[in-house]
Amino acid sequence: MKGHLFNRRRFIKESSKAAAGIVLLPSLANHTQARTPPPRIRFSVIGINHAHIYGMTETIIKGGGELVSVYAKEPELIATFLKKYPQAKPARTSKEILRDPSVQLVLSGSIPADRAPLGIEVMQHGKDFLVDKPGVTTLEQMAEVRRVQKETRRSYTIFIERLESRTIPKAGALIKAGAIGKVIQTIGLGPHRMNPKNRPPWFFDKKYFGGIITDLGSHQFDQFIYFTGSTQVEIVSAQSGNLNHPQYPALEDFGDVMLKGDKGTGYLRVDWFSPDGLKSFGDSRLTILGTEGYIELRKTTDLSGRPGGDHLFLVNREENRYIDCSKEPLQFSELFINDIINRTETAITQEEVFLAAELGVRAQAEAKEIKLLTV
Amino acid sequence: MKGHLFNRRRFIKESSKAAAGIVLLPSLANHTQARTPPPRIRFSVIGINHAHIYGMTETIIKGGGELVSVYAKEPELIATFLKKYPQAKPARTSKEILRDPSVQLVLSGSIPADRAPLGIEVMQHGKDFLVDKPGVTTLEQMAEVRRVQKETRRSYTIFIERLESRTIPKAGALIKAGAIGKVIQTIGLGPHRMNPKNRPPWFFDKKYFGGIITDLGSHQFDQFIYFTGSTQVEIVSAQSGNLNHPQYPALEDFGDVMLKGDKGTGYLRVDWFSPDGLKSFGDSRLTILGTEGYIELRKTTDLSGRPGGDHLFLVNREENRYIDCSKEPLQFSELFINDIINRTETAITQEEVFLAAELGVRAQAEAKEIKLLTV
Repeated sequence: MKGHLFNRRRFIKESSKAAAGIVLLPSLANHTQARTPPPRIRFSVIGINHAHIYGMTETIIKGGGELVSVYAKEPELIATFLKKYPQAKPARTSKEILRDPSVQLVLSGSIPADRAPLGIEVMQHGKDFLVDKPGVTTLEQMAEVRRVQKETRRSYTIFIERLESRTIPKAGALIKAGAIGKVIQTIGLGPHRMNPKNRPPWFFDKKYFGGIITDLGSHQFDQFIYFTGSTQVEIVSAQSGNLNHPQYPALEDFGDVMLKGDKGTGYLRVDWFSPDGLKSFGDSRLTILGTEGYIELRKTTDLSGRPGGDHLFLVNREENRYIDCSKEPLQFSELFINDIINRTETAITQEEVFLAAELGVRAQAEAKEIKLLTV
Repeated sequence: MKGHLFNRRRFIKESSKAAAGIVLLPSLANHTQARTPPPRIRFSVIGINHAHIYGMTETIIKGGGELVSVYAKEPELIATFLKKYPQAKPARTSKEILRDPSVQLVLSGSIPADRAPLGIEVMQHGKDFLVDKPGVTTLEQMAEVRRVQKETRRSYTIFIERLESRTIPKAGALIKAGAIGKVIQTIGLGPHRMNPKNRPPWFFDKKYFGGIITDLGSHQFDQFIYFTGSTQVEIVSAQSGNLNHPQYPALEDFGDVMLKGDKGTGYLRVDWFSPDGLKSFGDSRLTILGTEGYIELRKTTDLSGRPGGDHLFLVNREENRYIDCSKEPLQFSELFINDIINRTETAITQEEVFLAAELGVRAQAEAKEIKLLTV
């Protein structure tokens, strides 16, 4: 999510610049076309309850997707979406999109609990699905999604941080080249700013967002799998709770999990306690411990004062080095659209997507509730 | 331990300077006296197997202790100690020290598993005890130490990081003043460099050092208690193992623990994987999450490039601020000697010492062994 928001802000900034420059250009549409490759696939959007859908839409357009149509239950959300993407045709029902044989891919930023049922329908209509995180909110959804994906062989991809990160692939490449030896552990911290005034009602009810471990933890579970290479993972322990928001009794504001994989161990913490004095939505960190060194990613902010995000620190036998990843390439959109066309798994594998999501719902289901003494 | 090593290095550097300057000064003893206040208590040393004992001795001399005598089973360790502290009288047995009624305090850096039995004897002889960490290595030792301390009302103090830290008391003061609201969680990382060539045989055998969670985790358990204020603590989960040192089968090189206290949650990780490219023995960190902000301590090193240790980063509603703690006062030695004289608990309370140590041995006893697939 961090990545999402981050890219979204950057995007909004860029598109404001574009809007300011419009008088010098024939049209915004032409300008957009000039920046993007010719469309390689056709896609639509169903469900725009979380603003992440804007970053996702932009990503797919950049990779070569042509936005065909959009549907949401909420007319006001459609209206806002159409202002940004006038090329999209508003559909009267989701079925209208599902039945359009020209649409190869459906994107969704619907309410989390509605995503898996929608994704199942999408796959059953022969289309691929790219969904905001969390991509599933219960163990039952997980099982059903797995079953239908196996049956239909469509792609059910959850748009987690790794796919839009400049630091994570760089760290992956360094590790592959042997920079820190064998990975032993990852520690992922995913604090977030709550902004309660700007949140819709479903944000405050666990039954819609699936619990904080499932929701915010999506990224950290994925990174644990990615960096340790584990395929068999035990949830050693998990706990979550509402520690400081009694006004929202169905919210969780804190969760943490300890993991033991077949190829490494892990810990993650997620919370809604990012303070307003912080320059980003949250001080998102990842520490990757190896047998010969370690890497720390300061993904969104560096308390030491370096501007922006995408900071990588490497320490190994030879050196203690800072690597600015802000110019690293973002490859997801191109690879993902290649995958849709070629039926390959170069952007991320289906099994990785499912394993990360499953760890999220398993850990959430097993989490013990934290109750602290109020002082 | 981090602090120990850090201070020890600094001390060795300073004393080398002193040694180099000896030709200009009447004597090293006079030079030492000039730097230190007049003695307020008399103390001795029993057991010098870990070099931490040098930092501890120095601390007590600086606070107003007069070093009386020393005993160790190993003549070569005594010889080295006497070169540094010629004022100490070598005792023929530990009993000789225990029976000296003028000695009020005994310090020990003996082999970890021998510390509790010695401390019990020390207390039974009416003396206070200051011991290197870990101060106990088993649950049985813990129970016996608690029993005898209650009976004798002597002090059994374990010299953990907080007592020689410039950042921890500063963070404590900030939090007391409300800088980050109510503390919700601490995450403590205690990586260490192994230096196997310089380690004695007992270092490699868990039955002597008590396990990595008990040993290196001493500091993180204490900091969890100190910052959350918890007095009832559940070990949610603990795991440890030997992940990359098959040549030392009785060693543990990794451990981590998840905690739930009545007033906050916690996580800690300790390991022997600090790489040689790092400027300190380990990149020791503490992140304190509060309801209104958070604090990060980079205790020994700052990967961002600031020199030295003792770095504090504060983020709250108002600001994102760096605080250099390298000039903060070290108060332990004076307070501790006051406590010995006045029978008070101003440096640290006995219950805090015991709770931190007990969590260490409990977590170690409950820890599941980690076995990773070798790739």
